[in-house]
Amino acid sequence: MSNNLEQEKMGFHQFVCDLQDQITAEMKRIDPAINLLEDNWQRTDHKGLPGGGGRTRAFEGVVFENAGVNTSLVHGFIDPKFAQALGGTNDSMWAAGISLIIHPVNPRIPTVHANFRMIQAGEKFWFGGGADLTPYYPNVEDFQYFHRVWKEALSPYGEYEKMKKTCDEYFVNHHRQGEMRGIGGFFFDHYNSGDTLKDLQFVKDVACQFIKSYFPIVEKRLTEEFTEEDVDFQLHRHGRYVEFNLLHDRGTMFGLKTNGRTDSILISLPKRCKFSYQYKPKVGSKHEEMMKYYYPQEWA
Amino acid sequence: MSNNLEQEKMGFHQFVCDLQDQITAEMKRIDPAINLLEDNWQRTDHKGLPGGGGRTRAFEGVVFENAGVNTSLVHGFIDPKFAQALGGTNDSMWAAGISLIIHPVNPRIPTVHANFRMIQAGEKFWFGGGADLTPYYPNVEDFQYFHRVWKEALSPYGEYEKMKKTCDEYFVNHHRQGEMRGIGGFFFDHYNSGDTLKDLQFVKDVACQFIKSYFPIVEKRLTEEFTEEDVDFQLHRHGRYVEFNLLHDRGTMFGLKTNGRTDSILISLPKRCKFSYQYKPKVGSKHEEMMKYYYPQEWA
Repeated sequence: MSNNLEQEKMGFHQFVCDLQDQITAEMKRIDPAINLLEDNWQRTDHKGLPGGGGRTRAFEGVVFENAGVNTSLVHGFIDPKFAQALGGTNDSMWAAGISLIIHPVNPRIPTVHANFRMIQAGEKFWFGGGADLTPYYPNVEDFQYFHRVWKEALSPYGEYEKMKKTCDEYFVNHHRQGEMRGIGGFFFDHYNSGDTLKDLQFVKDVACQFIKSYFPIVEKRLTEEFTEEDVDFQLHRHGRYVEFNLLHDRGTMFGLKTNGRTDSILISLPKRCKFSYQYKPKVGSKHEEMMKYYYPQEWA
Repeated sequence: MSNNLEQEKMGFHQFVCDLQDQITAEMKRIDPAINLLEDNWQRTDHKGLPGGGGRTRAFEGVVFENAGVNTSLVHGFIDPKFAQALGGTNDSMWAAGISLIIHPVNPRIPTVHANFRMIQAGEKFWFGGGADLTPYYPNVEDFQYFHRVWKEALSPYGEYEKMKKTCDEYFVNHHRQGEMRGIGGFFFDHYNSGDTLKDLQFVKDVACQFIKSYFPIVEKRLTEEFTEEDVDFQLHRHGRYVEFNLLHDRGTMFGLKTNGRTDSILISLPKRCKFSYQYKPKVGSKHEEMMKYYYPQEWA
């Protein structure tokens, strides 16, 4: 491996840390009284050796009920069986990335999730990431806006259609007859064109669109009034969010299997949620309308 | 297979249906205004053929916030890969059982879960089941009572110590450093002494102790006053309950994989729950004391 590539790996870690700071600043601007807890943690690898760590930022505020904006840089030995499953050429790995989730208080503001990561297993490199929106109210123009930003970012690389489809297929509660967690966005995994430097540039170019894709929606809906029924629907959709993350999400599995930090991984769960037997929103309500948007469709 | 065994299989199904009725009557007696929704459902098997069904009873009341007391009798073809994993001699299965979960409103009353099932895969039979308690307040005498009832039921068969240990080892949030879901009880799976009729009698003898093991605790704590802090602790423990059920519970997996009925399976989830980053109860509180009981110990 060239020194150049080693420098690029550290450069990617720096990039995600800078992005973490920018997103933190944006959240503080919108929710000045927000409470931020920063945990700098370290881990040991499969052999008990120092294996890197991360910077977890947990937020609780008035606008943002709970949120996690985390970066990590982990490396070292992994379980050989797991290495084999990953397709690596030996049992060492290196990974750096940012992962974030923001659950607002107001049900008129959607939840957002995004992550961008660079992974090396043995001598193999690949990238993964994406961003997806989980709204609780049928403000269709917001869904269109979110998708439009990502379409503009990805289209120069010819990747929007494919990555939008991958997202639609990934964030699905398979045990709920194909109902999605939200309204999608884009998603990619095992991304590797053969030119790692080019792929790195692609991921950075895309990731830096995150702030533009989400915070204008927050500011637009910030003062919109909401009802008890809106909250009840939101909390039930939070329940579906939990179902997806714990039953289907590969990121959660990967984290828990690689001896990841449980609190940093499960920070993705919404603070409050509800489960009711055969929950259905009121007939004729905005929430019933919202239900039909949790299936793949064209937004941009 | 003898006609006798076929009759015993149907007899076991009748037994769990009767137990379902007895438990339903007990819940109505304690919580007269309880709302009961009964769903009689049918399923198709892996080949699309009629595959049995079940009777789901979903409760919502004043004492019991949400509860599910379900019976089912399912049969037919299963995915051959899954049949192999089960160790069956061909790809047909038959299963009957009762599964129940009761989440009370008052945090001074524990949540209870129990199930008893008879399974046939190919020509192989086995039994599974158990009962476990999830309290939210350190009323140690209740934990002792619950374990004592099961110890008395299981000891004549010489099974208490082993099945208590299996339960302690099963209901564990492995991603939470060995913290248990509750304070245990007993649990058994793949139970097969070689004498199916004898095993059947064992399971029935034990299962009919359920009412005695739990409802006296409910009646004792029914009018006990509770605080906002009690509720906050209860809802965070509900969160851990959800984590266990979705990340680790084999019953949930089995149900979702055998084309089970999602709503009947996920009825086990508590109605309201909370997730907070690095949640810890107040220092010196009863809830902090409770935390130390979520690890294996002798209760009876």
